[in-house]
Amino acid sequence: MPPISTDHLLEALNWRYATKQFDPEKKISEENWAALEDSLVLTPSSFGLQPWEFVIVKNQEIRESLVEHSWGQRQVADASHLLVITFRTDMGDEQVDRFISSTEATRGGEGTHGPYRDMMAGFIERMDMAQTMNWAKMQTYIALGQFMTSAAMLAIDACPMEGFVAEKYDEILGLKEKNLTASVLCPAGYRSADDKYASLPKVRFERNELITVI
Amino acid sequence: MPPISTDHLLEALNWRYATKQFDPEKKISEENWAALEDSLVLTPSSFGLQPWEFVIVKNQEIRESLVEHSWGQRQVADASHLLVITFRTDMGDEQVDRFISSTEATRGGEGTHGPYRDMMAGFIERMDMAQTMNWAKMQTYIALGQFMTSAAMLAIDACPMEGFVAEKYDEILGLKEKNLTASVLCPAGYRSADDKYASLPKVRFERNELITVI
Repeated sequence: MPPISTDHLLEALNWRYATKQFDPEKKISEENWAALEDSLVLTPSSFGLQPWEFVIVKNQEIRESLVEHSWGQRQVADASHLLVITFRTDMGDEQVDRFISSTEATRGGEGTHGPYRDMMAGFIERMDMAQTMNWAKMQTYIALGQFMTSAAMLAIDACPMEGFVAEKYDEILGLKEKNLTASVLCPAGYRSADDKYASLPKVRFERNELITVI
Repeated sequence: MPPISTDHLLEALNWRYATKQFDPEKKISEENWAALEDSLVLTPSSFGLQPWEFVIVKNQEIRESLVEHSWGQRQVADASHLLVITFRTDMGDEQVDRFISSTEATRGGEGTHGPYRDMMAGFIERMDMAQTMNWAKMQTYIALGQFMTSAAMLAIDACPMEGFVAEKYDEILGLKEKNLTASVLCPAGYRSADDKYASLPKVRFERNELITVI
């Protein structure tokens, strides 16, 4: 695997910022968007269970209707693409079995995964409902991280957003009947020339406040 | 910002896998490790509050002692570097004020951030302790995602690990007295030639099961 240079990596990560204002005229190309979808599909998760689905909202009318349920933030309507990362609310035996079927379809070894299946099922069983939901939701933040970093590598802007009413998203996007709930949003596209936040220096605690070597 | 190609991005993300066996002889260079630390520092978080610290365990004796508290998984001792991502257990007014001071030190505007401060403090105040902890922990998974994707871009292997006893890590690494608790681990280094998992095809649900367009 040919690595990129550390300078290139850091240039991308420093360039990235939570875009406040997108240029509604600038669209992500199909090739780039397909790669970003792949970055979501390829995201690692606990045991590989992928307790998520990714919803891309293209319908502009629906996107406009989501603004009021997103603290009035226009990014959900103005960005090239609106990604809604959702997590499954039904993690348990059935999803574990689905994953085992998928594993056997890809890697073979049919019927040999019993102990692994029971280990995962037991892991979930030992959690109460709230813990299971938190664990599933936690995984979606890995996807958020991989998506944002991947976007930066492609010089595409993004804005992670927790400020929205999940119940309203679930209702409008029909998530509940699919045993999903909205976790976090990430509109993506290109920054507007008017976004004054784009040029502000990043605010971070001092390195020695954030990193300890033991 | 010069983008990388989508092929290059996907090559890196497909190359990445949760490394089961690291080569203990292969070390990450200082330059590469510094860049990976930067990727952690630069990770975005809710409101920019950075409710985390990153602990790098170099002491080999300590690393060996952590194996038994990590379901016996040797990656914590064998990888070139052991990253322990921790989250703050004391998110509240004091941490918000610390962040505002940091913002003013970087961007100026002293004394003008009152409303923003109160908004963030109010957001945290409306959560109970368990919710606040979950929200803080959630952020650390963005860091995990950014770290793993960055490592892949540098052709460095990593292994995300939830399977460990946080209380023991907190005790051994002295985290509790710093108002921190271990969230998730990510040993990093280079895969061993003996790791039979490295060449297995990735298991993922079908694209149309994971991605919906509305």
